[in-house]
Amino acid sequence: MSLTTISRNKCFGGIQSVYRHDSTETGCPMRFGVYLPPAAEQGPVPVLFWLSGLTCTEENFIVKAGAQRIAAELGVAIVTPDTSPRGLNLPGDADSYDFGVGAGFYVDATEVPWSTSYRMYAYLVQELFQIVTTELPLDAARAGIFGHSMGGHGALTIGLKHPDKFRTISAFAPIVSSTRCPWGEKALTGYLGADRSTWADYDATLLVAKLGWKGPSILIDQGGDDTFLASQLRPELLVAACAEAGVALNLRMQPGYDHSYFFIATFIEAHLRHHAAHL
Amino acid sequence: MSLTTISRNKCFGGIQSVYRHDSTETGCPMRFGVYLPPAAEQGPVPVLFWLSGLTCTEENFIVKAGAQRIAAELGVAIVTPDTSPRGLNLPGDADSYDFGVGAGFYVDATEVPWSTSYRMYAYLVQELFQIVTTELPLDAARAGIFGHSMGGHGALTIGLKHPDKFRTISAFAPIVSSTRCPWGEKALTGYLGADRSTWADYDATLLVAKLGWKGPSILIDQGGDDTFLASQLRPELLVAACAEAGVALNLRMQPGYDHSYFFIATFIEAHLRHHAAHL
Repeated sequence: MSLTTISRNKCFGGIQSVYRHDSTETGCPMRFGVYLPPAAEQGPVPVLFWLSGLTCTEENFIVKAGAQRIAAELGVAIVTPDTSPRGLNLPGDADSYDFGVGAGFYVDATEVPWSTSYRMYAYLVQELFQIVTTELPLDAARAGIFGHSMGGHGALTIGLKHPDKFRTISAFAPIVSSTRCPWGEKALTGYLGADRSTWADYDATLLVAKLGWKGPSILIDQGGDDTFLASQLRPELLVAACAEAGVALNLRMQPGYDHSYFFIATFIEAHLRHHAAHL
Repeated sequence: MSLTTISRNKCFGGIQSVYRHDSTETGCPMRFGVYLPPAAEQGPVPVLFWLSGLTCTEENFIVKAGAQRIAAELGVAIVTPDTSPRGLNLPGDADSYDFGVGAGFYVDATEVPWSTSYRMYAYLVQELFQIVTTELPLDAARAGIFGHSMGGHGALTIGLKHPDKFRTISAFAPIVSSTRCPWGEKALTGYLGADRSTWADYDATLLVAKLGWKGPSILIDQGGDDTFLASQLRPELLVAACAEAGVALNLRMQPGYDHSYFFIATFIEAHLRHHAAHL
């Protein structure tokens, strides 16, 4: 087994683990969490990939979302990757919270010096997916993807491009159009360069228009009091794109909720049930 | 209102807040969390005081236990104090994880220099109880107390001494006999001095023998794979004391579980329902 166990805790009858492995895509050790429900003792179980937001590691979702209770009941596993390479000390990689470390944006960078290691797209879709479905009791044919904020952007873009791998998609407060918000513009300029024509492959609204989505409706929860709603998230752009493309979207505005894990914890159960019902 | 709001997040229809106030007992600003369920909008609700373990602040329980979901359903509030004074920079107060900052042990110190500020017992029982039940929609006549490890010790000792204030008691992996374990002996020596005769008032097993308990059965969950089980926690001492005193104790050994918040999150629902059923 190529995985080193960092921690292992019994939780709701299953096991919450954190592993480390040497990634060929990022060229550094990467951590990720896996929750295996009790049902995994009997055989492979469906698996959800959770992509976290800016500044997060694999740990935030594990300790804050309260997802293990429902995952145990439904018999689904949850894989929680980190949000970027770490420990490389590339010039400027720790200068801001929204670029570099903790802010991989789920793209494969083409600009120097990021292009050799900031490959979170390939890391997730190819390398990590392969490793966890090979080395752990997970059913590769029953996978879904979801995430929060930057990770919602990741879940939408990766899911839309790989309906063969990810049969269900949901998101909390996602960046729906990375080419049309400050966070996305900064990240895509840095990782992909100033030529915007190369950005389209990482914009969920453009991917919906280009590729469509034949899977179950995409579930999105969005807090009405989210500080970033109008400036960065702009869910109305995805509503319009889905309507135009005939894609089923269930956007639920949640009055009074903000961008925090208190919001995620409140609605995580609905997301897990949505995925499980279709996997 | 003497409380300064540090944060406020909607969560499961209620509000998770963190407040700061200037404490007369500890002589420094203290933080604490309060979760108010939706029912608190209609009037005062029952309140549970959660006492945390070594190294914790008010935050650990708030983000890791997943308690708000059940508190919202049951209509109970949860107050989460800090575990010691902070910012005083007393000599040696940050030298170890199990004494000083983050390790107040829920006692009123008598030894210099701790005696003027390490007064977590009086802070909780008198000052904080009074403040929260006066300034927030909490019903002072329907309060319970629970906690983890050092906080389990705090919940047991405070609850047993104040059945008038706290009608229900429960604990996760508590230190049941502070006078008979390394953590307790270190703390009580430091805060109360070497004369062990002064320690008895802070030992749950001795308090059970001295005071008894006429309230609902005391619920305790204890992980079977808890690293500290045999050396620090020793639940069998409380089992014996309760049997001798005729006190109803429901000790549930949970195979495979450790000392972490993953263990707490797994069984927190049973504790909240136990308290709510009797408040």
